[in-house]
Amino acid sequence: MSDAITISLQEAEALSNKVLTHNGFSQTHADAITRSVMAAQRDECHSHGLYRLIGCVQTALNDGVDTQAEPTITDQATSVVKVNANKGCSLLSFERGKPYLIEKARHNGIAALAINNSFHFSALWPEVEALSAEGLVALAMTPSHAFVAPAGGTSPLFGTNPIAFSWPRPGKTPYTFDFATSVVARGEIELHRRAGKSIPEGWAMDDEGNSTTDPVAALAGAMLPFGSYKGSALSTMVELLAGPLIGDLLGHETQAANAEKTGKPFHGELIIAMSPEAFLGKGAEGHLNHAEVLFESILGQGARLPSQRRFEARERSQVNGITFPQVLYDELKALASS
Amino acid sequence: MSDAITISLQEAEALSNKVLTHNGFSQTHADAITRSVMAAQRDECHSHGLYRLIGCVQTALNDGVDTQAEPTITDQATSVVKVNANKGCSLLSFERGKPYLIEKARHNGIAALAINNSFHFSALWPEVEALSAEGLVALAMTPSHAFVAPAGGTSPLFGTNPIAFSWPRPGKTPYTFDFATSVVARGEIELHRRAGKSIPEGWAMDDEGNSTTDPVAALAGAMLPFGSYKGSALSTMVELLAGPLIGDLLGHETQAANAEKTGKPFHGELIIAMSPEAFLGKGAEGHLNHAEVLFESILGQGARLPSQRRFEARERSQVNGITFPQVLYDELKALASS
Repeated sequence: MSDAITISLQEAEALSNKVLTHNGFSQTHADAITRSVMAAQRDECHSHGLYRLIGCVQTALNDGVDTQAEPTITDQATSVVKVNANKGCSLLSFERGKPYLIEKARHNGIAALAINNSFHFSALWPEVEALSAEGLVALAMTPSHAFVAPAGGTSPLFGTNPIAFSWPRPGKTPYTFDFATSVVARGEIELHRRAGKSIPEGWAMDDEGNSTTDPVAALAGAMLPFGSYKGSALSTMVELLAGPLIGDLLGHETQAANAEKTGKPFHGELIIAMSPEAFLGKGAEGHLNHAEVLFESILGQGARLPSQRRFEARERSQVNGITFPQVLYDELKALASS
Repeated sequence: MSDAITISLQEAEALSNKVLTHNGFSQTHADAITRSVMAAQRDECHSHGLYRLIGCVQTALNDGVDTQAEPTITDQATSVVKVNANKGCSLLSFERGKPYLIEKARHNGIAALAINNSFHFSALWPEVEALSAEGLVALAMTPSHAFVAPAGGTSPLFGTNPIAFSWPRPGKTPYTFDFATSVVARGEIELHRRAGKSIPEGWAMDDEGNSTTDPVAALAGAMLPFGSYKGSALSTMVELLAGPLIGDLLGHETQAANAEKTGKPFHGELIIAMSPEAFLGKGAEGHLNHAEVLFESILGQGARLPSQRRFEARERSQVNGITFPQVLYDELKALASS
C-alpha cells in the first residue's frame, strides 16, 4: 500500500478511543465501538474498521446517535432478552445483552437477543463470533436503510440486510459467514463510482427500474438482491424478524442521519443463539467433532471456508500491527484533537 | 392438461390413504403422509404431491423407511423438544412434536423442534404453515443426499438443503417461502433430461468439475448452490444446524434407499418457532399489522410474494378438485390394489 502507515494494534485502539471520547462518546460506548472497529481492522476488513469512525462521529454531530445513551435491559420471556439501545450505538447494547443471551441459550437450548432503537454501523461477525467463542451457535441479522429492490420490483425497499452465522470449532477459528442479502455491498458500487468504472450487469437498476452498469445511476436507483427471488425472500425475512417481530422499524422507514437532523437511523437487530450442549447433552463433543468432516470435505475439494482470509489477516495483524492509508490516519488524528 | 383426470380432494385423500396402508404403512403414518401430500397437491405443487407416494412406497419396499415406527419424544431442554422418528417418515414426528414446540415457543418466546433419524421426502412449507396458522413465526431446514458442490468446489457434498419460513398474517394467507439452496431443484434437471433439453449454464458441473449444459452429465456430476458463495454458506448452515447440532448426519452421509437395501436415507430436520406475543406482549397485534406495510410495498411495485401462485391454486382446488395426469392416477390405483 503506497502512502500507508503501519501502527500496532494498541496504538490503533488508543486512537479509536481518543476519536470517540473527544467527540462526545461516553467511555463505555467508546470501548464497545473500539472493540468492534478494531476486530474488523485487525482482520483487514477495512470497510468496517477504523474508517467507520468517521461516519460514527459524523452521525453523532448530526444527532443520529446518542453518545451517552445507557441501554435498558428487559427480561422479556424465558428465552428472550431485549435491550433498548435508547438511540445509542448497538454495540454497547449487544455487550450488555450478551451475558443474558448466553445464560438463556445454555439453559434453554435456544434463545434470542433483540436490540431495539439502535444506531447500527458495524459488521455482524464480531457478535456471532463473540458467541461461538462461548461455544454457542449464533445467527444474527439487521435491516438497514432502503437500498435494495425486491426481486421483480423496481424501487428500493429493503436494506442490504446482512445475515451472519458462526459455528464453534473447538481449538480452531470458527466457521463464520456474514453477508449482505444484496448482490454486493453498497460500498462496492461506491468504490466503482470513485474509480470511474462501470459496474457489472445484475448489480443494480436505475431510478426507472432499468438494469444499469453506471454506478451513479445505480446509487440513485436500486440495488438487486443476491440470488434473485431467493435472496429477496431472505431479505424479507430479515426485515420481518429484526423489525416487526422485535417491535422495531422496517428498513425503508429508517434513513441515515443527515445535517438537517431529520434522519431516523435507529432500528433493530436480532441475534439467536443455540447451545450444542443443551441440544446434545454428553454427545455434544462428538457431534461438534463430526461437523469437522464437513469442513474438511469443503477444503478437500479446493473450496474455501468463508472468513478464512480474515483469520489469516488476524494472525498477520497480531504480529505485524495494522497497515492502512496515511490519509485515513491523518483524518482520525484530526478528529481526535479538533 | 391432456390425458388428465380431475377428482375431488376427498377422493384423492382416500386414494393416498389406500396406497399407503395397502403397502404396509400404519394408519397414523398414512394419515400424516396423506395430509402433507394432499396439501401439496391441493396447492398444485405436483412435485411434492401425489406423485411422491410412488417414491414413498418404493422406499418402504427397499427397507428405507419403517412403515410402523412410533416416534419417541424427548423434552430435551426448556426450549428444545426432540422427536426420534425411529426410521419412520418425518411427517408423523413433526405432528407429534408440534404441540410441544408450540407450547414452548408461546411460553418461552423461541423454541426448537429437532427431528432425528427420519425418512424425509416432503416439502417444508406445510410444516412452517402449520405453525404460522397457530400465530407463530417459523423457520425449518433439512439436509438431503449429496447433490450440490460447495461454491469453488467440484464434487457433490451438500444436499439441496431447503430452507422454509412462514410469517403469520392474521386473516390472510401467510408470508411463506420454501426453497432449495441449490440453483434449482434436482427434479428440474431430471425434467430437462426427460425432455431431451439442455440445461442453462450455471446450474451444474459434470463429474470432472466442468460447467455443463447436458442434464445427463449434470445428474452424474454436481449441482451448484444458488447465489454462489452466499448460497453455499447457507447450505453449510443447514447441514450444521439440521445435522451435528441436533445429533444427526451430514447430507453426504445419507443416500436414497436402494434395491440392495444399503441406502441410509435417514437424517434430521430442525424447526425453529417464535411467538410474536411472547416477543412483544400487548404490542404484538400492532407490529403484525405493521409488517403488512412491507408486503404492500412489495406488491405495490409489481413484485410478487412467494407462494402467491400456490395460494391461488389452493382456492381453485377447493372449488374444482385436483387435476393430474391419468397415467399417475392409474399407477396409484395399481399401487393401492396390487
